[in-house]
Amino acid sequence: MSVTYKAPLRDMEFVYYELLGGQDINQLPGYEDAEPDTIKAILEEAAKFAETVFLPLNQSGDEQACQLNDCVVTVPDGFKDAYDQFCEGGWTALTEDPIYGGMGLPYSVSVMMSEMLSATNQSLAMYAGLTHGAAKAIHACGSDEQRKTYLPKFADGSWSGTMCLTEAQCGTDLGLIQTKAIPNEKGSHNLTGTKIFISAGEHELTDNIIHLVLARLPDAPPGIKGISLFLVPKYLFDADCNIGDRNPVTCGAIEHKMGIKGSATCVINMDDAEGYMIGTEHKGMQAMFVMMNSARLGTGIQGLAAGEQAYQGAVEYARDRVQMRSLTGVKYPDKKADPIIVHPDVRRMLLTIRAYTEGCRAMTYWIAQELDQFAKNPDADRREEADDFASLLTPVIKAFCSDTGFDSTNLGVQVYGGHGYISEHGMEQFVRDARIAQLYEGTNGIQALDLVGRKMAMHNGRLVKRFFTKIGEFIAQENQNESLAEFIKPLVNSFSHLQQATGWIAKHAAKNPDHAGGASVDFLRIFGLVTVGYMWVRMVKIAQENQQGSDAHFYKAKIKTGRFYMQKLLPQTSSLLASIEAGSDSLMEFDEAYF
Amino acid sequence: MSVTYKAPLRDMEFVYYELLGGQDINQLPGYEDAEPDTIKAILEEAAKFAETVFLPLNQSGDEQACQLNDCVVTVPDGFKDAYDQFCEGGWTALTEDPIYGGMGLPYSVSVMMSEMLSATNQSLAMYAGLTHGAAKAIHACGSDEQRKTYLPKFADGSWSGTMCLTEAQCGTDLGLIQTKAIPNEKGSHNLTGTKIFISAGEHELTDNIIHLVLARLPDAPPGIKGISLFLVPKYLFDADCNIGDRNPVTCGAIEHKMGIKGSATCVINMDDAEGYMIGTEHKGMQAMFVMMNSARLGTGIQGLAAGEQAYQGAVEYARDRVQMRSLTGVKYPDKKADPIIVHPDVRRMLLTIRAYTEGCRAMTYWIAQELDQFAKNPDADRREEADDFASLLTPVIKAFCSDTGFDSTNLGVQVYGGHGYISEHGMEQFVRDARIAQLYEGTNGIQALDLVGRKMAMHNGRLVKRFFTKIGEFIAQENQNESLAEFIKPLVNSFSHLQQATGWIAKHAAKNPDHAGGASVDFLRIFGLVTVGYMWVRMVKIAQENQQGSDAHFYKAKIKTGRFYMQKLLPQTSSLLASIEAGSDSLMEFDEAYF
Repeated sequence: MSVTYKAPLRDMEFVYYELLGGQDINQLPGYEDAEPDTIKAILEEAAKFAETVFLPLNQSGDEQACQLNDCVVTVPDGFKDAYDQFCEGGWTALTEDPIYGGMGLPYSVSVMMSEMLSATNQSLAMYAGLTHGAAKAIHACGSDEQRKTYLPKFADGSWSGTMCLTEAQCGTDLGLIQTKAIPNEKGSHNLTGTKIFISAGEHELTDNIIHLVLARLPDAPPGIKGISLFLVPKYLFDADCNIGDRNPVTCGAIEHKMGIKGSATCVINMDDAEGYMIGTEHKGMQAMFVMMNSARLGTGIQGLAAGEQAYQGAVEYARDRVQMRSLTGVKYPDKKADPIIVHPDVRRMLLTIRAYTEGCRAMTYWIAQELDQFAKNPDADRREEADDFASLLTPVIKAFCSDTGFDSTNLGVQVYGGHGYISEHGMEQFVRDARIAQLYEGTNGIQALDLVGRKMAMHNGRLVKRFFTKIGEFIAQENQNESLAEFIKPLVNSFSHLQQATGWIAKHAAKNPDHAGGASVDFLRIFGLVTVGYMWVRMVKIAQENQQGSDAHFYKAKIKTGRFYMQKLLPQTSSLLASIEAGSDSLMEFDEAYF
Repeated sequence: MSVTYKAPLRDMEFVYYELLGGQDINQLPGYEDAEPDTIKAILEEAAKFAETVFLPLNQSGDEQACQLNDCVVTVPDGFKDAYDQFCEGGWTALTEDPIYGGMGLPYSVSVMMSEMLSATNQSLAMYAGLTHGAAKAIHACGSDEQRKTYLPKFADGSWSGTMCLTEAQCGTDLGLIQTKAIPNEKGSHNLTGTKIFISAGEHELTDNIIHLVLARLPDAPPGIKGISLFLVPKYLFDADCNIGDRNPVTCGAIEHKMGIKGSATCVINMDDAEGYMIGTEHKGMQAMFVMMNSARLGTGIQGLAAGEQAYQGAVEYARDRVQMRSLTGVKYPDKKADPIIVHPDVRRMLLTIRAYTEGCRAMTYWIAQELDQFAKNPDADRREEADDFASLLTPVIKAFCSDTGFDSTNLGVQVYGGHGYISEHGMEQFVRDARIAQLYEGTNGIQALDLVGRKMAMHNGRLVKRFFTKIGEFIAQENQNESLAEFIKPLVNSFSHLQQATGWIAKHAAKNPDHAGGASVDFLRIFGLVTVGYMWVRMVKIAQENQQGSDAHFYKAKIKTGRFYMQKLLPQTSSLLASIEAGSDSLMEFDEAYF
């Protein structure tokens, strides 16, 4: 028995429309085509595609893994055909700019597609996923000619993109980059150096691969202020994009890793490889951040998708597997034992996965829609607000969703008992695949530092003030709503923990920044718990208003899952606050030699 | 770079002697040989053996995994030679009864050896580890003849033992066992059926494998009360134990699994295989519980060992890897960046692993010494006390140590960042190997049910009362100790959470047992946190008294690790209590159809 998957379209639509008002997104200039019926049709097609094309290759892709022979990477069987179908279906063009061959649909629509693709085949989804970020970076920071050259190729999927940041001596600390870019006679640059951990760095799925490479010019100042960004194609090409000579940018090795084995993680060697600068000299990090923010949200989506996979796999097993009788008496007398779904602790595990997953979906889709507002809303104030929310919550989404996603895959295994450890059932693969999301695109510890160190301080705390005001207004508005009281009360409680934690950090970090560093991971977790709690109360409110209708089932489940979240998961904030308020002396006073 | 390991002998000795008074264990009749010098020499030898023989085969064992061809299991290269050295060194005889060729040393000594073996090669350690449980079961429940036949073979390691409980339709619910045992003309039984998940079920390391098999006699009552236990040898043998015909008990398949790939997890088919009953008809579960309790403690030790592995790997990397500068200014101006051990969040991860590992070591060794008291103390009251503590804490050790061990391996990976995900560094293997300990020998959810459902109620609550009294007395005794006040205060606080949780469950479970089931996992976690907290305060007290001596370094680190535990980890109890007191209605009122 291996795991199946049905795209959670009902819940996606609930969040996208009923919670977030996505039916109005087509009123934004440029998104006129994003009508509810169109989006609905797209989602249904994406669901079918994910379920029938991506899912069947997930387990076999893990077993076969990628292979490297003579600098050529062979992807698992079926991946090439699936990728071709992905391009033919127009999926690579979904959100790209219509000027360059894209469909120009909102980013938030692609997020739902990404969730389905990642849930059904995380490795395969990554080949397409990074190209979008490369396109965004070129769109934002490239020259007009660069846009015209590359973006149509990305939109039709015939070329793909990579992000080449990491080197052996630096991941987090990109100021240590050593790859060199020397101006040449042609007006371009010759790049030499070695990059590691390059996802989709080499493969034969596309006609060309465009590496976005961080490197140093000869006169570059040291550190992070001396980094420039270059486009380094696998194959050189002429003015009409006809493929020419191989550029000396080659795959020296692929990594053997815990999971996402169908995704090629490459060592990329450049030996005087020709490259073309994007944007301004020494300002490469700006363009890279465009790409990185997109990748960070994408990583959060992987966590969310992992939770959904794990939930569906675990529920199926919990209904099917019979073992022991219910503590309150036999529930299925015709069976030799009761299905394990009757046992309270199995329900605890299932509801934990579900409450995190649905809550993370709401949080992630909200920020996706905010990014669409930021992109297209004519009102500058609204754009600023949207940008503030997105900037503040990007590290939270990346870290919180990947943490809860990983925990969810482990709960999924736990529901299976010993069978969860056996590869054929598919559950342990989810654990191995999900683990990467806590590590790449900036470890979750780095996300926490981004939150406490950069985002909290940005514009004199405007981002966080705006966010707290939003939650505070919602609480004030619903405080007299009796039917919501049991949900509002724990939100108020945990929101006060978040505010106290914020105050503690503000007060102590000024004196000693290690207090912020020591508190950062606990703080990000409180932030995620409260944000998801806020989304849950909003969802419950809508569900309460609809529970008499034809879809009562769905809304009642929503209310009950929300109740579980508020009662059983949200209380974590009190312990996290206690840990933060204990300070970081116990961390920093531990002599280095004692470790 | 791959992970190294140095056995933590200093900490082991601190716990064994200074904390627990193990220098007096040789005063117990039968343990006269267990003099401190003897134990010290054994530990040093065991450390050398683990570091030089087991450790070098850990990564290669994972890569090669076990192979099955024509019912023959091939273990990874080097395992046979290492196992032979293990036997030649007399390690298999360590705790076995001298009457049957054993050395008769206390169980608590073997626990320290097991920790080192499991830390260096969990898969390889399992081949020897289960034999000890089989020996215990035969010793406790077998006939004199059975003891004389099998125990010398187990003591010299030439034969090994297995536990054959699980079948495809039952793991937790052994009442569903279908394997049949039919009396034959020879006075023995013919067994037919299929067992799954049999660790070390087939291999060529030993001359014979003795399967301890649960099966039903033809007249057996249904359910758990109709299970008998049989010895089913791989090879039949004559009165002098000369190997004869192959018994039809064969390996039909080995599982492909997440980790412990060097350990053969077998499907065992019996087709009229000859077997010999141990103990009384239909009372097989009693003998099996002797084996299972031993295996459960062994599983807790695996969790503890995983934490130690992860800690050592992570510290080494954190000292070596330079990335970014300290938030409070450059610490290593001669390097391009500071070693990541200067960063507060890296320290948080390292200290979390360390505080759990050292705390779990103290808890586990304590119970191991209690089992030695139970085995040999002439005073019946002391034996009862020891048995009470061991019975109460066995599920806690199994679940809490395997949970924190798994979390520790993940923190170890997180310290490495993306490099942690790459197989060659060895950190991700620890995660995959450690994951099994939460699943086998009764999932951790089953341990929690054992704690709340059986152990709390046993002898009218005597076990838990005795344990709470012990902690209460310690607190009363140290309450005026000013230098200990900062440690006692959080212990008092969390101990009150444990007592409140106990009261809540006692009150509500009587009305509805689902309240106990729904609270069980949270409750076991509080129980583990408080027990480990209690051990920490006792350790700190000893360390405070010794911090002026020649080994000041060690004791100061102990105090600081204890402070970290009390300030940063123990506060989890407040949230867990809140979750318990929220009750289980949110779990049970969720309609089955809604999942």
